[in-house]
Amino acid sequence: MPRKWISVLLLLQLSCHFSPGSCGKVLVWPTEYSHWINMKTILDALVQRGHEVTVLTSSASILVDPNKPSAIQFEIYPTSLTKDDFEDLFTRIISKWTYMPKYAFFTYFSLMQDIIWEYNDCIQTLCKEVVLNKKLMTKLQESRFDVVLADAAGPCGELLAELLKVPFVYSLRFSVGYTIERYSGGLPFPPSYVPVILSELSDHMTFMERVKNMIYVLYFDFWFQTFTEKWDQLCSKALGRPTTLFELMGKADIWLIRTYWDFEFPRPLLPNFVFVGGLHCKPAKPLPKEMEEFAQSSGENGIVVFSLGSMVTNMTEERANVIASALAQLPQKVIWRYDGKKPDTLGPNTRLYKWIPQNDLLGHPKTKAFITHGGTNGIYEAISHGIPMVGLPLFADQPDNIAHMKTKGAAVRLDYNTISSADLLNALKTVISDPSYKENAMKLSRIHHDQPVKPLDQAVFWIEFVMRHKGAKHLRPASHDLSWFQYHSLDVIGFLLACVATATFVITKCVLFCCRKLFKTGKKNKRE
Amino acid sequence: MPRKWISVLLLLQLSCHFSPGSCGKVLVWPTEYSHWINMKTILDALVQRGHEVTVLTSSASILVDPNKPSAIQFEIYPTSLTKDDFEDLFTRIISKWTYMPKYAFFTYFSLMQDIIWEYNDCIQTLCKEVVLNKKLMTKLQESRFDVVLADAAGPCGELLAELLKVPFVYSLRFSVGYTIERYSGGLPFPPSYVPVILSELSDHMTFMERVKNMIYVLYFDFWFQTFTEKWDQLCSKALGRPTTLFELMGKADIWLIRTYWDFEFPRPLLPNFVFVGGLHCKPAKPLPKEMEEFAQSSGENGIVVFSLGSMVTNMTEERANVIASALAQLPQKVIWRYDGKKPDTLGPNTRLYKWIPQNDLLGHPKTKAFITHGGTNGIYEAISHGIPMVGLPLFADQPDNIAHMKTKGAAVRLDYNTISSADLLNALKTVISDPSYKENAMKLSRIHHDQPVKPLDQAVFWIEFVMRHKGAKHLRPASHDLSWFQYHSLDVIGFLLACVATATFVITKCVLFCCRKLFKTGKKNKRE
Repeated sequence: MPRKWISVLLLLQLSCHFSPGSCGKVLVWPTEYSHWINMKTILDALVQRGHEVTVLTSSASILVDPNKPSAIQFEIYPTSLTKDDFEDLFTRIISKWTYMPKYAFFTYFSLMQDIIWEYNDCIQTLCKEVVLNKKLMTKLQESRFDVVLADAAGPCGELLAELLKVPFVYSLRFSVGYTIERYSGGLPFPPSYVPVILSELSDHMTFMERVKNMIYVLYFDFWFQTFTEKWDQLCSKALGRPTTLFELMGKADIWLIRTYWDFEFPRPLLPNFVFVGGLHCKPAKPLPKEMEEFAQSSGENGIVVFSLGSMVTNMTEERANVIASALAQLPQKVIWRYDGKKPDTLGPNTRLYKWIPQNDLLGHPKTKAFITHGGTNGIYEAISHGIPMVGLPLFADQPDNIAHMKTKGAAVRLDYNTISSADLLNALKTVISDPSYKENAMKLSRIHHDQPVKPLDQAVFWIEFVMRHKGAKHLRPASHDLSWFQYHSLDVIGFLLACVATATFVITKCVLFCCRKLFKTGKKNKRE
Repeated sequence: MPRKWISVLLLLQLSCHFSPGSCGKVLVWPTEYSHWINMKTILDALVQRGHEVTVLTSSASILVDPNKPSAIQFEIYPTSLTKDDFEDLFTRIISKWTYMPKYAFFTYFSLMQDIIWEYNDCIQTLCKEVVLNKKLMTKLQESRFDVVLADAAGPCGELLAELLKVPFVYSLRFSVGYTIERYSGGLPFPPSYVPVILSELSDHMTFMERVKNMIYVLYFDFWFQTFTEKWDQLCSKALGRPTTLFELMGKADIWLIRTYWDFEFPRPLLPNFVFVGGLHCKPAKPLPKEMEEFAQSSGENGIVVFSLGSMVTNMTEERANVIASALAQLPQKVIWRYDGKKPDTLGPNTRLYKWIPQNDLLGHPKTKAFITHGGTNGIYEAISHGIPMVGLPLFADQPDNIAHMKTKGAAVRLDYNTISSADLLNALKTVISDPSYKENAMKLSRIHHDQPVKPLDQAVFWIEFVMRHKGAKHLRPASHDLSWFQYHSLDVIGFLLACVATATFVITKCVLFCCRKLFKTGKKNKRE
């Protein structure tokens, strides 16, 4: 049989068309930037398996570009926002978050709260423009989707699923303080060994670190109470009955968490939480010719790859010069993704690119280290190829991501706002010359690649499972039906304590009564 | 290429010989009866993949029969116990446990405790005869095993692994009150929605059921403190340093739990707990000719399969007659695994067999129902083939197993000691004629078969993973390094409360002081 036919047969076997009636219709509620890059990998895989994928996207969307050729369908809804509004919002958020005073707890978090409120208002505007758009909703109803795949970082997917009466699957890296995972997913996070996200702690904490972690948990718990109010109103209005965002989110059939145990500290999970970190990672492809020649020209010293991710391609002139002067002193060649003014201190060993094939570079045999902002996608590419890192975290989960890699011995962390050239140079020399960093990065790589099911297959499997079985209710813990005091058994503990107190009281009274009786009888006898 | 060669190539690809250096040596510490049946499936798979498997078994072992032809190697150590002692022990245990007064909580559990102590003493004798046998231990040391696979129901595997300095994997259905999973594995079991084993509760509990569950948890917690004392002494003696059984058990790299979410109620897990329930299930093979003819003679009514498992093949004459008379009234044909005196009330529709091919019978298209004692292996065969059940649980986890199936709508539960013929007849009629039982059993079957990795492949993968990586420490939660009050954050809560109290005290004092000052100044001013 010709090889071409064998490939076609293999593809057919992988496709849902192979088992009749198992091809489904997926409605997607995406989020922008790196979230979309990650989710698109799942959507491409679903399309390749024969499913029909429709992405619900606004006319203001940035990265979700319906004009790029793709087998994914885009349902574009009109919005009062413009693309510029949207881009401005993100630029403002990044800039605020990056330069926030991280040392002052309450100032930092109240600023962060403002940022999240602003983002949240924007997402809510978009959500309103979908769920209150009768024509669009009728069209979606008539499309008879089998599942909604939603990024939990921007609510609305759960409301759409409820309105369309279809099960839904979340894709999620984290929510602030793990509040959504805890309050909606029912996931336990014992604060004694599970550092809450944004705390930058490890799983082995000193007493004072555990105190800090507990304060963070209490703060986020309080914060969460104020977060959902507006959403609760919108959900109730759209559904025509009183409900809460928290309640709707808790109906998720599967939570695809975009990490794995190569990255996370071991912690409790639930059967409907599936860890799919690094699902976008692929073997490296050959580099463009000019880049390959540059890499090869590094000789035995190899190359260093530097990128601050898809959201930050620029920086202040002062920071750029500090960094460039450190890079200039390296014996390695440096490939830097940068879209700003060429720094004056740029060395001849450093080349600037507006865009780099990051995964292919990290998988290149010459690559010795990766200077990263610590986005989850980039970190996973480094883990996948076993490359040690120097972290310059900026915002969101990035400081925590780098803290994880540092704890696992595969990264050195620096402060982007305050580093000097010497700091960066020393950090790079350390991760390149101290073999433990490479060994630990390779260990993470081996863990990443040695899973019973590849992360992307895992994600596709569970989305298809939800379509096949119209949900995954058998994985839903009964804790969803308990109030918080029932969940923590406070009513039971109170009842048992009351029983013990009553029993002690009754026994004491009886003993006292008997003693008194005996005493009186004794006295009487004596008198007689 | 001839088909024979293709098969050989496929087998080679599955074998560890395909990747040089990845074939390992596995030392096994087994437990008897159904535990061994389950574990042997894993061992056969490991042998088939090219690993060298050595089972450490005593000369008194019952089911571990080294004379049966097998590629598994058996290392038989001498013991002061005889096979008869061993068989007597199990007969005594079963008989005591089956007829225990289940209604009286403390009597029931104190009798159960006696039984477990007796079993425990026996296992400890065997363990001593291994770890204090210098010749045997030297031989095992020299064999350079890569992993120990141990059934956690009978301790010693963890001690052997520690002495041989190799990682180890547990196979476990449950420990009494989930104490080992909780105290050694660090697995959280919130008593508000996770019914403790032996409580026979479901995950949706009323207030009084939650009170009952909490009392069970407290009872088992107390019970566990007294359980390990003797083992702690043996472990410390064998290792020449003070240690505890609990500490050694907690070093398990992977816990292979012999259930899955088709059977369990959803509850928290940890990354090193892998659920492999029903790994022994296979498609049904054709029945022996005589049995097939009998099954076919049932016509449209079909057949009922009845077995009380590998440990109970007999019963009292009175019970046998009650059961036989119920079965005689069925329109179905009945295949009954029974080794006692033929009951007088046996109907012509019922045939007795000393042994039955249970899995093949449950997978037979004529099978309508399964009367079972509720052993996990049998229940999984019924789940696998989607057969509704009538449960006559006898001891150990059997009442809980049936309670799970009852909650999931796939079984009716009866009390073996007290049922009448009418009870059994009605129960059978219900599970056969009410379509919901078949539907629910089929639903469980679909869940069972629709997993990203088959349970047996999952078990083999993780044993091989531990061999490849010399452990799985990246999955071990940091909770193992915390004391119980640290784990529950009691020190942190205490500290924070003390801080709040101190702050309140200081502020109150300051306010009072200021008030007094102001009051005094006011008086002075007035006087002036």
